[in-house]
Amino acid sequence: MERIEKHVSHGGSQEVWKHASSAVGGEMKFGIYLPEAALRGQKCPVLYWLSGLTCTEQNFITKAGVQRYAAEHGIIVVAPDTSPRGGDVPDSPGYDLGQGAGFYVNATREPWAKHFRMYDYVVSELPAVVEAGFAASDARSISGHSMGGHGALVVALRNPGRYRSVSAFSPIVAPSQVPWGEKALTAYLGDDRETWKQYDAVELVANESKSASEKFPLLVEQGGGDEFLSTQLRPELLQAACEKTGHPLHLKIREGYDHSYYFIASFIGEHMAYHANALA
Amino acid sequence: MERIEKHVSHGGSQEVWKHASSAVGGEMKFGIYLPEAALRGQKCPVLYWLSGLTCTEQNFITKAGVQRYAAEHGIIVVAPDTSPRGGDVPDSPGYDLGQGAGFYVNATREPWAKHFRMYDYVVSELPAVVEAGFAASDARSISGHSMGGHGALVVALRNPGRYRSVSAFSPIVAPSQVPWGEKALTAYLGDDRETWKQYDAVELVANESKSASEKFPLLVEQGGGDEFLSTQLRPELLQAACEKTGHPLHLKIREGYDHSYYFIASFIGEHMAYHANALA
Repeated sequence: MERIEKHVSHGGSQEVWKHASSAVGGEMKFGIYLPEAALRGQKCPVLYWLSGLTCTEQNFITKAGVQRYAAEHGIIVVAPDTSPRGGDVPDSPGYDLGQGAGFYVNATREPWAKHFRMYDYVVSELPAVVEAGFAASDARSISGHSMGGHGALVVALRNPGRYRSVSAFSPIVAPSQVPWGEKALTAYLGDDRETWKQYDAVELVANESKSASEKFPLLVEQGGGDEFLSTQLRPELLQAACEKTGHPLHLKIREGYDHSYYFIASFIGEHMAYHANALA
Repeated sequence: MERIEKHVSHGGSQEVWKHASSAVGGEMKFGIYLPEAALRGQKCPVLYWLSGLTCTEQNFITKAGVQRYAAEHGIIVVAPDTSPRGGDVPDSPGYDLGQGAGFYVNATREPWAKHFRMYDYVVSELPAVVEAGFAASDARSISGHSMGGHGALVVALRNPGRYRSVSAFSPIVAPSQVPWGEKALTAYLGDDRETWKQYDAVELVANESKSASEKFPLLVEQGGGDEFLSTQLRPELLQAACEKTGHPLHLKIREGYDHSYYFIASFIGEHMAYHANALA
């Protein structure tokens, strides 16, 4: 594991690391913000952030302004790249498939199956790397944006014991029913839509059998002026599924806000306070 | 004048506009954050932000996290591009001369003299455009980073009646004495170093004849771990000049912080509070 960036930020340290990932069979990068307490060796809880299409580990750490809140609450923030890259990692001409578009699944189809195993990377390998390499406790929360909001919801719904809380900005809640998701899941998993259900938050909520006490509350932030709202995001599908199964959902529609980091930056403080409460 | 971007942000609007500039004889872009009060038509004071080498109007508006504080204090924030671009605008292969490196001077040498008139643009044309086109009062403050910190100090020192307050992050305080400045000022103004003094904060402080009551207090924020500290920035030269002439200077050296936007984002809140106090 090698540190490739280090910047003092709000009294802590914003760093970027790269490491050999066995999950994806190649090199992965992640950003990590270490608040001052973590730099002193005191174990801190961790928020994992999953970014959206086209993003690397850079977008969230440079544009969201999360460090102020992470410093305030004493939370480590980890933001991985959205896919492996370089070397023999396959790609596609589209921005919405291949490098920068891992969709947080374990691909089963060629040419993707060897490297595109971002689900395993996010759920298992990355927390192990973070908890072994930094002053990180095993108190974890997870959030993300768009494709990464989808990832956060799926990861939390499937692994409720591993996370204290989950939130999502502008998530793709039903990839099985929208163009971005249909394209990616077809490529990564093949035509059998049954295999898609494990990576679809609406399907996971609709088919869950857990008792109410085990149901993970979902906090979803959505811009009302988001250019992808009615075509790719469709939060009403999640709302309907949650109402049907009694799954707790706090869906906030913010009038006028779009799909950009200006939206995330406007509300990341509220989300950090929400996660801090769960992680305390 | 044409709006080319608009994003709701912290209850206000982060926009980017382009317009034909007579000062630079070409098109200029600027970012403008309009707090909610300004959107309702209430006249708000304005902070002008001048960016550093290689920057466009995008860097500050996407990376500094200023909108939260601008919303809180009800301040409009205007961040112009660092030079004209495109068309017949000359350039050089180096990142530190030509497009993206206007140095906030009025060039007198070819091929720069026609377009590189960023001093006039920032001091006169841009405030006129902003105060005519938006709900902006004529209460102005100015700040900037690196080359833009130099610009802010020079503009404020030469036009104390036009600004309520000035601050600078990691400014090039003595361009006449450092490589970035010597290269740019030679190209834009020629070899006669007398002509450089009007664009050199240390020279302006050293040669000022104003009474103490007219001396503009300078707030300078500098990272102690800045990779350009001893070669290009040299804040000790400004400190010495201010001590000699009794010019009020508040120089804050922040241990460990580097030259990046992580440094700016860490302290922009304090600077916004400082300017808000002067603009109130």
